[in-house]
Amino acid sequence: MQKPSLPKGTRDFGPAQMAKRAYILRTITKTFKKFGFQALETPAMENLSTLTGKYGDEGDQLLFKILNSGDFLKQVEASDLAEGPGHVLPKVAEKGLRYDLTVPFARYVVMNRNELAFPFKRYQVQPVWRADRPQRGRYREFYQCDADVVGTESLLCEVEIIAMIQEVFAELKIENYQLKINNRKVLTGIAEVIGAAGKESALCVAIDKLDKIGWEKVQEELAERGFSEEARTALAPLVAHTGDVAETLTFLSSYLAPSTIGMEGVAELRTVFSLLQTYGASPKGIVLDVMLARGLSYYTGAIFEVQVPDTGIGSVSGGGRYDNLTGVFGWEGVPGVGFSFGVDRLYDVLEVLQLFPEEAVEVSDYLLVHFDAKGFQYGLSLLAQLRAAGLAVELYPEPTKMKKQLAYATKKGIRRVLLLGDDEIAAGR
Amino acid sequence: MQKPSLPKGTRDFGPAQMAKRAYILRTITKTFKKFGFQALETPAMENLSTLTGKYGDEGDQLLFKILNSGDFLKQVEASDLAEGPGHVLPKVAEKGLRYDLTVPFARYVVMNRNELAFPFKRYQVQPVWRADRPQRGRYREFYQCDADVVGTESLLCEVEIIAMIQEVFAELKIENYQLKINNRKVLTGIAEVIGAAGKESALCVAIDKLDKIGWEKVQEELAERGFSEEARTALAPLVAHTGDVAETLTFLSSYLAPSTIGMEGVAELRTVFSLLQTYGASPKGIVLDVMLARGLSYYTGAIFEVQVPDTGIGSVSGGGRYDNLTGVFGWEGVPGVGFSFGVDRLYDVLEVLQLFPEEAVEVSDYLLVHFDAKGFQYGLSLLAQLRAAGLAVELYPEPTKMKKQLAYATKKGIRRVLLLGDDEIAAGR
Repeated sequence: MQKPSLPKGTRDFGPAQMAKRAYILRTITKTFKKFGFQALETPAMENLSTLTGKYGDEGDQLLFKILNSGDFLKQVEASDLAEGPGHVLPKVAEKGLRYDLTVPFARYVVMNRNELAFPFKRYQVQPVWRADRPQRGRYREFYQCDADVVGTESLLCEVEIIAMIQEVFAELKIENYQLKINNRKVLTGIAEVIGAAGKESALCVAIDKLDKIGWEKVQEELAERGFSEEARTALAPLVAHTGDVAETLTFLSSYLAPSTIGMEGVAELRTVFSLLQTYGASPKGIVLDVMLARGLSYYTGAIFEVQVPDTGIGSVSGGGRYDNLTGVFGWEGVPGVGFSFGVDRLYDVLEVLQLFPEEAVEVSDYLLVHFDAKGFQYGLSLLAQLRAAGLAVELYPEPTKMKKQLAYATKKGIRRVLLLGDDEIAAGR
Repeated sequence: MQKPSLPKGTRDFGPAQMAKRAYILRTITKTFKKFGFQALETPAMENLSTLTGKYGDEGDQLLFKILNSGDFLKQVEASDLAEGPGHVLPKVAEKGLRYDLTVPFARYVVMNRNELAFPFKRYQVQPVWRADRPQRGRYREFYQCDADVVGTESLLCEVEIIAMIQEVFAELKIENYQLKINNRKVLTGIAEVIGAAGKESALCVAIDKLDKIGWEKVQEELAERGFSEEARTALAPLVAHTGDVAETLTFLSSYLAPSTIGMEGVAELRTVFSLLQTYGASPKGIVLDVMLARGLSYYTGAIFEVQVPDTGIGSVSGGGRYDNLTGVFGWEGVPGVGFSFGVDRLYDVLEVLQLFPEEAVEVSDYLLVHFDAKGFQYGLSLLAQLRAAGLAVELYPEPTKMKKQLAYATKKGIRRVLLLGDDEIAAGR
C-alpha cells in the first residue's frame, strides 16, 4: 500500500488556513466590488500558443505543459528524440497551465471585445502554476489576486487603485504600511538627464536593489552596466533627496526639467495626488518613491508597490500602468492599469502581526453534547431551530462519553457546548 | 499575430456568469457551514501514483498528465518509443490534474489523520479536469462541490445531508424537486431475494436505466446479463410497487424478509426517516426510490440523488455512504458518507426556472455621470462617502459625452445613474 504524498511545491489548505484565506479574499473582493470591478475566471489550461513567448525564455521553461491525451507519441519518430526536448515538445503537448492572470485576461479581452463594456474593470482570484524550484515561501501553485482596468488612460484609475489598497489595509487592520508610488516616465526622464538615455531598463534593475544592497553597491553595479562616472554623479542628488510628496515633486520639477518625458511623469504624479486629495484619501502611508521600479519593463506610467515594514516579508501588493495589454493577440493600443495582492504574503503579514480576527476561524458556534439516547433525540430536535437562527451547530453523531465529545469540540476549536442532560432537557435547556 | 482561442472543452466565466455562480456557491457553502462542515482545498496537481488506478481503466485514460519540467526526455530511449505511450508515460510525466475531489480528500485524510478531529466534516469546491470528449453540457474543466463526513457510521450524517439539500433548495427557491433516497443494502437484498445473489452490480447498472428506457427494455438487458426469467418475475412486484415512504417500507419489510442484509437496509432507512422526523425536516420532495442505484459500486449504505423535474436537466446532486474511503492509501476501515452538488447543472436549472434573483448580478449600484470638469471633480468628491455607506459606485473615468457614459451603464447593467450637472451640484445633488 502506497504512502501518499503531495507533489513538491504544492500545499493542501486545511480548514484553519482556508478560513483565514477566505477572510483575506472576502475583504479584498468586497472592496473591488465597491469600486465597480467584476469577477472573471479563466480555465486552468490555455493553449501553449497563448502562453509561450509571453514571459521570456525563463518563463517558457517554467510553464507546466500538459501531455496530449490519447496516444501522445503519435507524431514522435525515433529521430525526433535526438533533436532534444524543445523539438519534441510541440509534438506531445499543446496545452499548458496558467502562469499568471494577465495573459489569460488579455486573451479574454480580445476574444470578447465586442461584448465588453469599456473601460472594462475586472478582478480575478485564481491559482497559477510555475515550475520554479520550490523554496521557503515559493510554491509551484499559488493564488494571484489581480484587478485591472483596460481601455482608458484616465488617471482616476490610478487614484482608485490607491484608494482600494488603502481600504483593504484599513479593513485588515494593517496600520503601518508603505504604499510606494512612482511613474515609469520619471525613470525614463532620470536616464535622460543623467546622460544615459534609453538605458532606464538597466538603471531600473540596478536601482531596484537600492533597498537591499545600498547606494555604494548600486553604483558599482551601474558602473559594470556601463553607466559613466558623470551619470552616477548626476544621479547622486536624486538618491540623496528626502522629502514629502510636495517637496519631492518640487525637486523633480527642477531635476527633470531638461527631459520632456520626465516632466510628463511629474505632471501625471501631480494629477494623481491632486485627484487623491479631491477623493478624500488620507495621505497616510503614501510615499512618492522615485527609485521604485519593480524591475518590470512593461510598465509605462504609474508604478505601485506596498510593503509592511518590520515583518520581514517582501512587497504584498504591486502593479502599474501599461500601454498595450492586448497587442500580442492582435489588438493594438489598449491601455490599462492594474495591480495585484499577494495573498500568501498578506496571510503571513496577518499571522506575524496577529491580526486575524477570532471570527476568521470558521468553526461551529455550538456543539450539542448528549449523555444518552434521550439527550441525543432532544439535541436532534433543537438543531433545525438553532440553524434557522443563523447559528452553525453540530450534534455529536454517536452515542459516546462526554469526554470524547468535548475532545472533539476542543480539537475542532468549537468554543461553546450545550450539555443535554436530564435537568437541561426538563428546563427546556 | 495569432487569433487567440480557448482549449476545447474549457470556458471563461465572465462577470455575469461569475456573479450567478457565486450566488449558488455562497448559498451552498453557507448551509455547509451551518452544519459544521469546514473548507478544504487540495492542489490541482497530484502525483500520478495518487491518481492512477482509482477511476478504472477509462479514468486512467481521461487523466490529464503533466509533462515533467526540464529535460522531460532524459529517461526516454529510442527503443522506448516502440513500446508505446503506456510504456513511455511514466518516464515523461509523474504528475496529473485532479480528476475528482474524493481521491485528493482521501489522500488528505490519510496524510493528516493525527491532526484532524474525527468525525471530520469537510466541504470542497474546486475544479476538476477530465480529458473527455467535449460535448453539450460536458466540459474538460468543471467545478465539483462536495461535502463528506468520515470516521462515523452514525445515520445522523445521512439525515443532515438530506436536511442540507432541503435547505439549499429552499434558499435557491427551487420548490419542485425530488430528493430520492435508497440504500445499497436494499439493492443487495433484492438481488438475493430474486435468486441472483452477488449480482447486484449488474442489477444496478440495468435498473439505473429504468427512468430512461422503461421496464420492458430493462428486462431485456437483465436477460442479456444472465438474469433468469424467475429472477425477472420476482423483480416485477417491486418495479410495480408505488406508495409513500411508510407504505414502501412496509412493502420492503415483507419483500426482503428472506434477506438479512436487505432487512438491515430497511432498518437503516427506517432509522433515517425516524431521525428526519425528530429533526423536523419536511417530508416534501423526499422519495424512497428502491430502484435508485447511481451505478456507483462503491456505495455501501445510503444512496442519494436529486432531480428537478420538467427542466430537461439530469440529476443536480447525488451521493452516498461508503465503507472504506482511505483503504487505497493504507488506512483501512474508515467509513463515511458524502454528496456533491452539480454546480453547472444547478446553474442551468436556475436559468431555466428563471430563479436567479436580481441581486445575483454583481454590478455597481450607481454610475456617476458628469458633463464637465466641475461635475467630474464633484463626482470624485462623492465617491468615498457613497462607498463608505456600502454602495458600489463608479465615476465614469474620462471626460466624454453623457450618451457614452449612459451606454457604459447600460452595457454593464448598472441600473441607476446620478447626473452631476450644475443644478445637481448646487443643490448638493
